[in-house]
Amino acid sequence: ERITCFDNDGTLWTEQPMYVQVTFAMDRVRALASRNPQWRTQEPFRAVLENDRAAVSTMGEKGLLEIMAATHAGLTTEDFRKAVLDWLATARHPRFKRPYTDLVYQPMLELLALLRANQFKTYIVSGGGIEFMRPWTERVYGIPPEQVVGSSGVTRYELRANDQPILLKEPKVQFIDDGPGKAEGINQYIGRRPVLTFGNSDGDQQMLEWTAAGTGARFMGLVHHTDGVREYAYDRQSVVGKLDTAWNEAVRRKWTVVDMKHDWKVIYPFELT
Amino acid sequence: ERITCFDNDGTLWTEQPMYVQVTFAMDRVRALASRNPQWRTQEPFRAVLENDRAAVSTMGEKGLLEIMAATHAGLTTEDFRKAVLDWLATARHPRFKRPYTDLVYQPMLELLALLRANQFKTYIVSGGGIEFMRPWTERVYGIPPEQVVGSSGVTRYELRANDQPILLKEPKVQFIDDGPGKAEGINQYIGRRPVLTFGNSDGDQQMLEWTAAGTGARFMGLVHHTDGVREYAYDRQSVVGKLDTAWNEAVRRKWTVVDMKHDWKVIYPFELT
Repeated sequence: ERITCFDNDGTLWTEQPMYVQVTFAMDRVRALASRNPQWRTQEPFRAVLENDRAAVSTMGEKGLLEIMAATHAGLTTEDFRKAVLDWLATARHPRFKRPYTDLVYQPMLELLALLRANQFKTYIVSGGGIEFMRPWTERVYGIPPEQVVGSSGVTRYELRANDQPILLKEPKVQFIDDGPGKAEGINQYIGRRPVLTFGNSDGDQQMLEWTAAGTGARFMGLVHHTDGVREYAYDRQSVVGKLDTAWNEAVRRKWTVVDMKHDWKVIYPFELT
Repeated sequence: ERITCFDNDGTLWTEQPMYVQVTFAMDRVRALASRNPQWRTQEPFRAVLENDRAAVSTMGEKGLLEIMAATHAGLTTEDFRKAVLDWLATARHPRFKRPYTDLVYQPMLELLALLRANQFKTYIVSGGGIEFMRPWTERVYGIPPEQVVGSSGVTRYELRANDQPILLKEPKVQFIDDGPGKAEGINQYIGRRPVLTFGNSDGDQQMLEWTAAGTGARFMGLVHHTDGVREYAYDRQSVVGKLDTAWNEAVRRKWTVVDMKHDWKVIYPFELT
């Protein structure tokens, strides 16, 4: 029963100034623009292509979903995997000038290793895309693809010539692994109740509640972003999400809250310059 | 990359004279009849309650789905788990007079153990219900809940009084893990391509194709039911499914076909009387 689940964005790696996957999607809009000339005049693509910050920041969830569908579908799962790895190899965080996969929290890497050394299985349970994470989580976190739960689009099986099957990514949402969906996703993918879960926003609240309701020893944790010098200080307001009702629950129920600034001696596995 | 996937019904355990889960569902119709008096006159429930074999055998997929929805929904995941275990504890196979979980194939248990002894992860990838299998697969096959992929209904998270959350099973199909769905399900749940898969019907064909298309050593297997004395001989016609196009592929592509009568010295882990 040693199942542990970790949110990814803001819990295992930095989610500022924008979710990494959203940056990836916007870079893909730019990379695919020549094949999609209509985007030059079509929102929200025009806003991304012209770097119209005002329009980008107000595109809302609808605009974001359009961008996700256009940049995450129409290719095979294998080609998408390659696109993710190619992008990560060259993309750099705007502030730290490092690959995004360097911006993982050293204390969390140590916690993952400690748990695994004690026969716990470590899972990611993230609102992020399952196929955006799986190509690199084993190298970065030691978490293999089959222990990554996330949001997903529909894929469609097709058998092509010479017995070559493909899985084609379709522009249709299959599962949103956020909020209540995190408890539902844990049940669907894992089928056991975790004994430890760690998150950082309201999207993690139901996963924490579900964990807390089991019997025996358990641990519910929240990362609180308080360090504007070494990481980011955004208190209870995230890029998209918030830390509001989950915070209240954590206080009321005495769940563990990590204060990054005071509790973490180091943030990243590299030295800040 | 040592991922292996096994179909369940007819590959790991006996699927005759009826899928075990269908027998479970029909027994649940009987058990829940007093709480649902309208069933006495309502098809397909009436047919089950009156043991009207002609009507039961012609209810078709639509009738079966109605029975599955009525007997698998409206309760929490924990209560459903208990219902499955309670039923398995007393239900007996009509011919062998043994618990259904005894009717597992000894050679397949040995194969599962051999694989695990060589650091392969063993998965079930079945058209059967994920929550019908997970309560007992670890005890019977050594396969933990998180390594069971199957068909599923929607569950809905609800927080009740005293911080008690539940996951409620709804009468709505979420995922059908059969045919192309098996390749899609492997991608969704596991995220790696298996190196070995074993099935017994056309519903397993795409999983076998998907496995065959990878690089490096691989194994694709089909169990052929040829032993009417020790198990059942139904050649290429199953209860619901068939072994037709997958059989042709196996012959053409030289996949392994197990002839139960000739290749298996023993069938079950108990002595036949």
